[in-house]
Amino acid sequence: MAGDTTITVVGNLTDDPELRFTPAGKPVAKWRIASTPRFMDRASGEWKDGEPLFLACTYWGQSAENVAESLQRGHRVIVQGRLRQRSYETREGEKRTVIELEVDEIGPSLRYATAKVQKMSRASSGAGGGVPRGGADDDPWATSASPAHGRSGTSGSGFDEEPPF
Amino acid sequence: MAGDTTITVVGNLTDDPELRFTPAGKPVAKWRIASTPRFMDRASGEWKDGEPLFLACTYWGQSAENVAESLQRGHRVIVQGRLRQRSYETREGEKRTVIELEVDEIGPSLRYATAKVQKMSRASSGAGGGVPRGGADDDPWATSASPAHGRSGTSGSGFDEEPPF
Amino acid sequence: MAGDTTITVVGNLTDDPELRFTPAGKPVAKWRIASTPRFMDRASGEWKDGEPLFLACTYWGQSAENVAESLQRGHRVIVQGRLRQRSYETREGEKRTVIELEVDEIGPSLRYATAKVQKMSRASSGAGGGVPRGGADDDPWATSASPAHGRSGTSGSGFDEEPPF
Amino acid sequence: MAGDTTITVVGNLTDDPELRFTPAGKPVAKWRIASTPRFMDRASGEWKDGEPLFLACTYWGQSAENVAESLQRGHRVIVQGRLRQRSYETREGEKRTVIELEVDEIGPSLRYATAKVQKMSRASSGAGGGVPRGGADDDPWATSASPAHGRSGTSGSGFDEEPPF
Repeated sequence: MAGDTTITVVGNLTDDPELRFTPAGKPVAKWRIASTPRFMDRASGEWKDGEPLFLACTYWGQSAENVAESLQRGHRVIVQGRLRQRSYETREGEKRTVIELEVDEIGPSLRYATAKVQKMSRASSGAGGGVPRGGADDDPWATSASPAHGRSGTSGSGFDEEPPF
Repeated sequence: MAGDTTITVVGNLTDDPELRFTPAGKPVAKWRIASTPRFMDRASGEWKDGEPLFLACTYWGQSAENVAESLQRGHRVIVQGRLRQRSYETREGEKRTVIELEVDEIGPSLRYATAKVQKMSRASSGAGGGVPRGGADDDPWATSASPAHGRSGTSGSGFDEEPPF
Repeated sequence: MAGDTTITVVGNLTDDPELRFTPAGKPVAKWRIASTPRFMDRASGEWKDGEPLFLACTYWGQSAENVAESLQRGHRVIVQGRLRQRSYETREGEKRTVIELEVDEIGPSLRYATAKVQKMSRASSGAGGGVPRGGADDDPWATSASPAHGRSGTSGSGFDEEPPF
Repeated sequence: MAGDTTITVVGNLTDDPELRFTPAGKPVAKWRIASTPRFMDRASGEWKDGEPLFLACTYWGQSAENVAESLQRGHRVIVQGRLRQRSYETREGEKRTVIELEVDEIGPSLRYATAKVQKMSRASSGAGGGVPRGGADDDPWATSASPAHGRSGTSGSGFDEEPPF
């Protein structure tokens, strides 16, 4: 891959990671991250929070299972990946475009936490992070347009129909 | 500023940069950039274009005038800045969120071009790149709902009401 | 801080992190990271390892203790920080310059591992990552020429006299 | 290429770029960049310059000619590339290691300058930025071991024996 726009984001998970599998058995995890910049307010002379940046993250491959097992809502993480633009249609037939992060590497930040690291045997952890191209066949979220698409049979809260962030 | 999400993007301007001034006289330039990743298609064994990433860019300060004077639609550039999320309401009252790039540094890429560089005297180029916070007062696009604001005289062609990209 | 050269590195710790304290009690951790790029060898059509990049990392503040407690030699990490150039003199009076990484954020990579994350209470974790400027007074390695400073009891095993990385 | 450590640096050329050609006719440009961070000095309440970071840059391919034609000592540039570690021996047989930047994209910064951009025809600009691997055969600086190579006014001022920065 060449010409990718790579980026590193530090922020907090807004939810537990969601793990799914393609029909072919390939794992993929999704979650959202909120990154809040801080700026010096000249009037008050104090640091204040800026408007947070929310980014939907997708992580393909065996490593997705490590994420689902290790991270939870609220955890501060450091993520590196490539910005991707994705177009989709709302139920009303309106075209929308969102910018998402295709993750290459992620870890829990040690700024305010410790972590007990457990290496996976290579056999069980696989190649990790592979990036399938094209092909709704491989997308475990692809079926989310179906009315029954659930997430465990509940009312349709798939990523695809949520507002972009 | 701390905790900002900085990013470097290489791509092509989709239009000429648009230069405006705040009521207080501060220059600001806006433009859009398209960055197209390339990937190796395993089936054909050839490099193919991926889906382009479009990003709206804003550049505050005296340097904005340099951009307007130097760059045109189609030029390949290298841009560094901070990702910002911005929320706005459509005319229909729908809330939308877009991700934009607040530019810190930009230059024409020399990959497929040469450039004749002309340094500005510091007096005329000013501090450059300063980032005003908050305050629609400072936003020359804030008045874009007004019918007179131009850009082909049509209704509402300001950035604020355009679809995100 | 402005104009810093920030960078994200993914690699493996070449040693356990070393934790020290300034006379004033400020913690600081040091370690080295090896990042090995891979490239497609056209002759063989296979991926091969390129020459690894070694970077010395320094992490200031309470978070340094989290690093020392969580990470070990061999762990794969994702690190974000600022490149710093540092000059020093060898015992022979030769001037040398090294490039190091002043860490802002670090976490164990979940690509080939899981991690059990334990949040610290803010009280105990402090501000974290603060960056003291100048002042050998604050440098716990500054005394490393002293015979008593440890690290295998040999003379002068401080970072300062080691080869550049 | 995977696992590369990419970085963006903003700084000033410390010298005019030097252009050479491999025996096979492939162009390559070298130059050095100085990037000076600024920090808020708490004692004085003023911004001060930090210690500059110096990085040797190498740019392979037809685009190297564009750089040589467009940029001069003192120009402020924005550069994106990959950090590379390179080992070499001094005349005294001492092993040294330096970190350099293999450039993927570069442009003159428009912060304090304007630029008159002239696109090259694709035919004349070539693929640009290709990265040859291994092979001193391809290195136009490889002959710099010759005793005459000097610096200080002699012909053939190779980078290889210069002090790292």
